[in-house]
Amino acid sequence: MTLALINKEIGPVSNAIPSSPNTLRHSMIATHTPATAPPLDLLLIPGGAGNRGNGTTWMHPFLASRWANTSYIGSVCTGSMILARAGLLNNRRATTNKMAWSSVVQHGENVTWVPEARWTVDVAGKLWTSSGVAAGMDMMYGLLGWMYGFEAVNRSMNVLELAPHTRAEWDPYAVVWNVPGADRTKPLTDLVGPAGWV
Amino acid sequence: MTLALINKEIGPVSNAIPSSPNTLRHSMIATHTPATAPPLDLLLIPGGAGNRGNGTTWMHPFLASRWANTSYIGSVCTGSMILARAGLLNNRRATTNKMAWSSVVQHGENVTWVPEARWTVDVAGKLWTSSGVAAGMDMMYGLLGWMYGFEAVNRSMNVLELAPHTRAEWDPYAVVWNVPGADRTKPLTDLVGPAGWV
Repeated sequence: MTLALINKEIGPVSNAIPSSPNTLRHSMIATHTPATAPPLDLLLIPGGAGNRGNGTTWMHPFLASRWANTSYIGSVCTGSMILARAGLLNNRRATTNKMAWSSVVQHGENVTWVPEARWTVDVAGKLWTSSGVAAGMDMMYGLLGWMYGFEAVNRSMNVLELAPHTRAEWDPYAVVWNVPGADRTKPLTDLVGPAGWV
Repeated sequence: MTLALINKEIGPVSNAIPSSPNTLRHSMIATHTPATAPPLDLLLIPGGAGNRGNGTTWMHPFLASRWANTSYIGSVCTGSMILARAGLLNNRRATTNKMAWSSVVQHGENVTWVPEARWTVDVAGKLWTSSGVAAGMDMMYGLLGWMYGFEAVNRSMNVLELAPHTRAEWDPYAVVWNVPGADRTKPLTDLVGPAGWV
């Protein structure tokens, strides 16, 4: 499957002491442009300061044109702002980084912005959005399990020694960042452990 | 401070649709070679398949020569194999990825390999080693808190929405990967929440 537009280029491993910084270069290089990209299985939009302003408006028509023939579309952190501005969240459910909440939820039309969610799923498992940064790891655990089944994913998680949050509704950061609608009576903690073991 | 040999080179943000994959290039470029690197505050050795065999033996004399004038030396995952082969773990405490346990602990002399540890600290807070991959995030929470105090670090963690494991002794993966010496009677789960809040 094609996971992204990105590929890795890793320099040769050598027993020699590197004599030039260039030999230590590690690049991530796009293999396609928006115009040449093949049909995609997963289109994942990251967050970050770069998605504010108009630096990414070229992505809006690209995303809108790819909605129908892409299997899974997701965002991490403020990446949902790009999905919203592209119109992909209209009349749908989504969430975002809770510190950036107020600046993100003004985008899109009739979006059900969920104030307490580690991640959201909509459109019968096609549309996934996560809360801030690290929440993307938990959403991807859920998404990869949905795509491939949890047995294979659980093994990878345990190789990585990552104990995921498995409840999409666990979201203490709505309280931490004072998001309107956050339930202050719920416990902020979560019990986590090895995937598939607990 | 100098955090590493690595710097980021990020392409210009543009409103134009990228016409060439090169405009989407994202590189991490070393700014120094081992010979030209200035005194370092933190020297952090990652894990990965690349540290098996003899592809990284050039690092051993470099690390040994830098031990005395580097403030903090740490490893993530099987990066501790490199520290061990460089002699930096001799007569000291360390841990590593629990899946890779048996292949790592054969290195070094009189190393106290701790079978149950999310991370270890030795030499009065100078030497830090973590268990596999994701454990490095928790070790770095502890290390950055040690270096800068937890108030600033807690705020960053909450921006990232990352709820750290704060107990260095929590390590269910010693049980998952059947490491000799693992205590099978302890609970495998951990209660985590927003840093500084719980």
